[in-house]
Amino acid sequence: MVIVMKHHATREEIQDVMAHIESMGFKAHPVYGEERTIIGVIGDERPVEPEVFDLLPGVERTMRVLKPYKLASRDFHPDDSIVKINGISVGGEQVVVMAGPCSVETREQMMETAAAVKAAGAHILRGGAFKPRTSPYAFQGLGLKGLELLKEARDAFNLPVVTEVMSPNDVILVAQYADVLQIGARNMQNFALLHAVGETQKPVLLKRGLMSTIEELLMAAEYILSHGNQRVMLCERGIRTFETATRNTFDINAIPALKALTHLPVIADPSHGTGKWEYVTPIARAAVAAGADGLIIEVHPDPASALSDGAQSLKPEKFASMLQEVRRVAEAVNRKI
Amino acid sequence: MVIVMKHHATREEIQDVMAHIESMGFKAHPVYGEERTIIGVIGDERPVEPEVFDLLPGVERTMRVLKPYKLASRDFHPDDSIVKINGISVGGEQVVVMAGPCSVETREQMMETAAAVKAAGAHILRGGAFKPRTSPYAFQGLGLKGLELLKEARDAFNLPVVTEVMSPNDVILVAQYADVLQIGARNMQNFALLHAVGETQKPVLLKRGLMSTIEELLMAAEYILSHGNQRVMLCERGIRTFETATRNTFDINAIPALKALTHLPVIADPSHGTGKWEYVTPIARAAVAAGADGLIIEVHPDPASALSDGAQSLKPEKFASMLQEVRRVAEAVNRKI
Amino acid sequence: MVIVMKHHATREEIQDVMAHIESMGFKAHPVYGEERTIIGVIGDERPVEPEVFDLLPGVERTMRVLKPYKLASRDFHPDDSIVKINGISVGGEQVVVMAGPCSVETREQMMETAAAVKAAGAHILRGGAFKPRTSPYAFQGLGLKGLELLKEARDAFNLPVVTEVMSPNDVILVAQYADVLQIGARNMQNFALLHAVGETQKPVLLKRGLMSTIEELLMAAEYILSHGNQRVMLCERGIRTFETATRNTFDINAIPALKALTHLPVIADPSHGTGKWEYVTPIARAAVAAGADGLIIEVHPDPASALSDGAQSLKPEKFASMLQEVRRVAEAVNRKI
Amino acid sequence: MVIVMKHHATREEIQDVMAHIESMGFKAHPVYGEERTIIGVIGDERPVEPEVFDLLPGVERTMRVLKPYKLASRDFHPDDSIVKINGISVGGEQVVVMAGPCSVETREQMMETAAAVKAAGAHILRGGAFKPRTSPYAFQGLGLKGLELLKEARDAFNLPVVTEVMSPNDVILVAQYADVLQIGARNMQNFALLHAVGETQKPVLLKRGLMSTIEELLMAAEYILSHGNQRVMLCERGIRTFETATRNTFDINAIPALKALTHLPVIADPSHGTGKWEYVTPIARAAVAAGADGLIIEVHPDPASALSDGAQSLKPEKFASMLQEVRRVAEAVNRKI
Repeated sequence: MVIVMKHHATREEIQDVMAHIESMGFKAHPVYGEERTIIGVIGDERPVEPEVFDLLPGVERTMRVLKPYKLASRDFHPDDSIVKINGISVGGEQVVVMAGPCSVETREQMMETAAAVKAAGAHILRGGAFKPRTSPYAFQGLGLKGLELLKEARDAFNLPVVTEVMSPNDVILVAQYADVLQIGARNMQNFALLHAVGETQKPVLLKRGLMSTIEELLMAAEYILSHGNQRVMLCERGIRTFETATRNTFDINAIPALKALTHLPVIADPSHGTGKWEYVTPIARAAVAAGADGLIIEVHPDPASALSDGAQSLKPEKFASMLQEVRRVAEAVNRKI
Repeated sequence: MVIVMKHHATREEIQDVMAHIESMGFKAHPVYGEERTIIGVIGDERPVEPEVFDLLPGVERTMRVLKPYKLASRDFHPDDSIVKINGISVGGEQVVVMAGPCSVETREQMMETAAAVKAAGAHILRGGAFKPRTSPYAFQGLGLKGLELLKEARDAFNLPVVTEVMSPNDVILVAQYADVLQIGARNMQNFALLHAVGETQKPVLLKRGLMSTIEELLMAAEYILSHGNQRVMLCERGIRTFETATRNTFDINAIPALKALTHLPVIADPSHGTGKWEYVTPIARAAVAAGADGLIIEVHPDPASALSDGAQSLKPEKFASMLQEVRRVAEAVNRKI
Repeated sequence: MVIVMKHHATREEIQDVMAHIESMGFKAHPVYGEERTIIGVIGDERPVEPEVFDLLPGVERTMRVLKPYKLASRDFHPDDSIVKINGISVGGEQVVVMAGPCSVETREQMMETAAAVKAAGAHILRGGAFKPRTSPYAFQGLGLKGLELLKEARDAFNLPVVTEVMSPNDVILVAQYADVLQIGARNMQNFALLHAVGETQKPVLLKRGLMSTIEELLMAAEYILSHGNQRVMLCERGIRTFETATRNTFDINAIPALKALTHLPVIADPSHGTGKWEYVTPIARAAVAAGADGLIIEVHPDPASALSDGAQSLKPEKFASMLQEVRRVAEAVNRKI
Repeated sequence: MVIVMKHHATREEIQDVMAHIESMGFKAHPVYGEERTIIGVIGDERPVEPEVFDLLPGVERTMRVLKPYKLASRDFHPDDSIVKINGISVGGEQVVVMAGPCSVETREQMMETAAAVKAAGAHILRGGAFKPRTSPYAFQGLGLKGLELLKEARDAFNLPVVTEVMSPNDVILVAQYADVLQIGARNMQNFALLHAVGETQKPVLLKRGLMSTIEELLMAAEYILSHGNQRVMLCERGIRTFETATRNTFDINAIPALKALTHLPVIADPSHGTGKWEYVTPIARAAVAAGADGLIIEVHPDPASALSDGAQSLKPEKFASMLQEVRRVAEAVNRKI
């Protein structure tokens, strides 16, 4: 950390701050400037809240020097991590495509969708059995029945399955059916849940919160990694801004920023990132062009009748043509699908 | 809902949309304008996602007419709800003051703080035993031991206690120690947790998420209310914006807006709302002037040594003088503390 | 500035950065930490973009130490500035009230409004002659005719006048009619305009941009101050956030933050800050409770027929009762109206 | 517009609202729902502020039906507009590349940069002579001298020139030197300036404000179009959000959204959109993959010595390799560079 002293801070205040720093086990190193004195704090600052120094007399503010995450950082793990899912490698040359309905609704819907996304070239099947819904009056998912339908489609089409887990209680159950555990955007800082999935060895797809910075996403990943599970994939799915023309603002910058800051694979979700099916294809192309390691796409055989997220779901034939377009972009950036 | 058709929508498209609406059990009522046709949808729209109509050919967009919440709405419950906590009424003439440390740290800290906030005039004691922390390396709270220390201070000073519960698993345990269950900002849309506290009869202090709209806050309250627990208090604690001069932006507008939209009491948290102890007193005064039914304030005997949130905690003597100032403002708006 | 070197920065990179710093006329002072080296840059950093150092090999990022503004800073001007407007002092004990219609529409409207706000106790008359409107099809203001009507009401009721100037071309003209020049939110970073009003000696009411930080507001003030005009008042009028229940989010935190950072008076605009007349009175009370030096309020004799901003305008009788309420709050915080 | 009446609105209130609507020259068409009555307002609502109806007794809120812009809308102009700049067509098959330094600094810098970007394949030269700077102490541009240097480079390398105009006063001057007039982000709602460039016949590059919605960008374009200048290009350059890992958040969604809503060409500015040169290439690739009609890129022969925006400027050789990468992506989406 670097502590910036106030313009009129006294010699005594500076000495007291330095004594306080050293009482905490750090070394203090002052730099006397023309208008301000600053004090470098030497040692591992991660467990400390920097704001706490702001309380000492004469201190103006405190700035972090170290990144607060370590296991997720590329500094300590320069090479890309590859997450293997039943033989599929995420984070390598291949752009991995996950697709399926927002919610598991019926056996017919799942089997039809799984057949279609498999035929189009998807690698992993998505589908929600436990659904986080803003309204208590909206469809809440089929629960266990949904997991069973997912499993059936999984086995029939040889597609690994990713599905959301919403409660620490459900982690063991969901892990019996799913190949990848998804942490939803609204649960990105549900620390009890992060702890629970961190204790499994299942791959985790960690979605960025609507309201979360890139650094907070990496800290959420750090929770999972620090509890022993190294198989974490990050997912950019759009953030909340003042713009209302789209449901969310897909943060395309997050893709190169994450690739620079962390070794973990980065998946893009243009369905939630836009909220409108018409924009899913161009944003999927853009995400791959920016360097995403994978896509997760909502597909439904009859979006207008979907029980959730119909407006952002692609019909199977549209999904197939999207994948054709994305494949060309992937090749243009030396990747393959 | 109102469906807005595209500029060039055909007669057939309009008829198909109307047929679709009626097939869902609604009545459809078209209004033919000069540039656009709109179609009113008559019936209870709450279980439906309006965006799903946007998929029908010729539709430009769909707008909600009804508010998505009902139990929380003042329309259906015009009188203010009063939440009683061991004889203290929240939501009436009195401005209720909750105070205490961010985290329960030691027996001495809790007893000293409880004595001080009681002497200054606080009504309810706060303190965190389970702490949601952005970093897995930061202090995570004392857990059960913290609950026991809280209970001891509660009984010694006859102060009801509010404390956070982070996981559905812990609800029964925490309810044995606490008089009020707090749902933290990061868990405002942890629906499994809302469901669990909705099934207790304990008062709930529901904090607004950092980037949650007022409507989403009311929908989260609706979850609790619809599961049978009517004793809900809402808490404005600052939202995330582009401004970085303060930790959060305290949304003072939310106070009159919530008082207009809902019958539930509204508590203000100027400690999190600002993140800086110097600003807590003016924002506490402002919140009461705007109509808040209560305050929740972080107080610590030695903020510079606090294990969390030291920078926004008041020392006991500062808290006492704050309360003096706030009392005068409360009287100026015909309330009392 | 403080330059943070990368984790693996080499000895040569550190030396090259230090040489670069010294070639720019600064002194460089390294602090060798456990994981990172940081380099303090000694000298007046204000004319330099800190990001430029990020380009040097081995640099991770650069952090400012000094505030970028100087004339506006309380560090260099510890006492409150008082702006005098025809005998009215803004920034002292009195809370100054500015009121009037959004737009000047007719002679009758101006005279009626001026009479009403004067009778209720307002000190300064507002009214727009040049109107910045989002739509080219909306009423654009009466221009010169509006200035003349304002002047007539000014003289009839002995009320100084504040009105917006939108173009550098119009500064001299508007200054002939107005006692205070208003810079609107959308022009807060119209640097040609700031320059032009900085060369007058008229008091300036500088409104914060919808999405401008407190620091940017102070930098805009610095433009005016550095061109020779010291009579600057700042105005918090709500910022743009994700919340849509109100037109803007009134940043109440900005009031104590500005009072801490600058010596300039701070005016609150609860009309734009909320966009709804029902919320204007509680937010006016809150702003004064938080320490605002003045209020600017939209008042119209017939809001439903107003040519602009009707929804946030108070009727004269409502304005009078608002002022009664605000007066009690002002007294509770040792101010007067 | 659609007016939503309150839950308990009376028959008289509904009739009064309808009478008010008709007194304004509209037709009123009520739809009686189960919980609410809504009233359709028939006629051209564009000159009216919908909020004004909220003031009438019994009204809950009012929603727009029509888009507030017309000339910029694809509804009224279905085919793509092509803006011709000295033989270059913007908005057609070709992706147009504009490149050059943030600021014009010296004759050598301009000639060297122009030579390099021409050689790499850029079509248009950019460079700022009048610079909007947050700080009054920062370099403000060379002004007229800068325009002359731009012109010299323009003629030497046969590259049309785009440069910013900041004040209505300067429009005629700048138009003598520039082929394209740029309106900067901070001036997007400088209506006097929009009016002035609307009266020229020069092509305009209109940058989206940091804080502006897509609809407001289109309304700003509408100002220019409605004053007679049809040669408008829109520029997405990143918006301000809560994220601080990048300077701005490049709103990639805006590209397909604008292409759907308007016929005007859309240019992407990944330099400002990211603020970091390392991210410019991936975001340039993404923008073209999403459908952008052009790019504007900051290039400087020695970014570490640039007087502005060095951190986001590419060196000429990096720019050349970027263009190679972007060309492959352009071909993958059936465009060319």
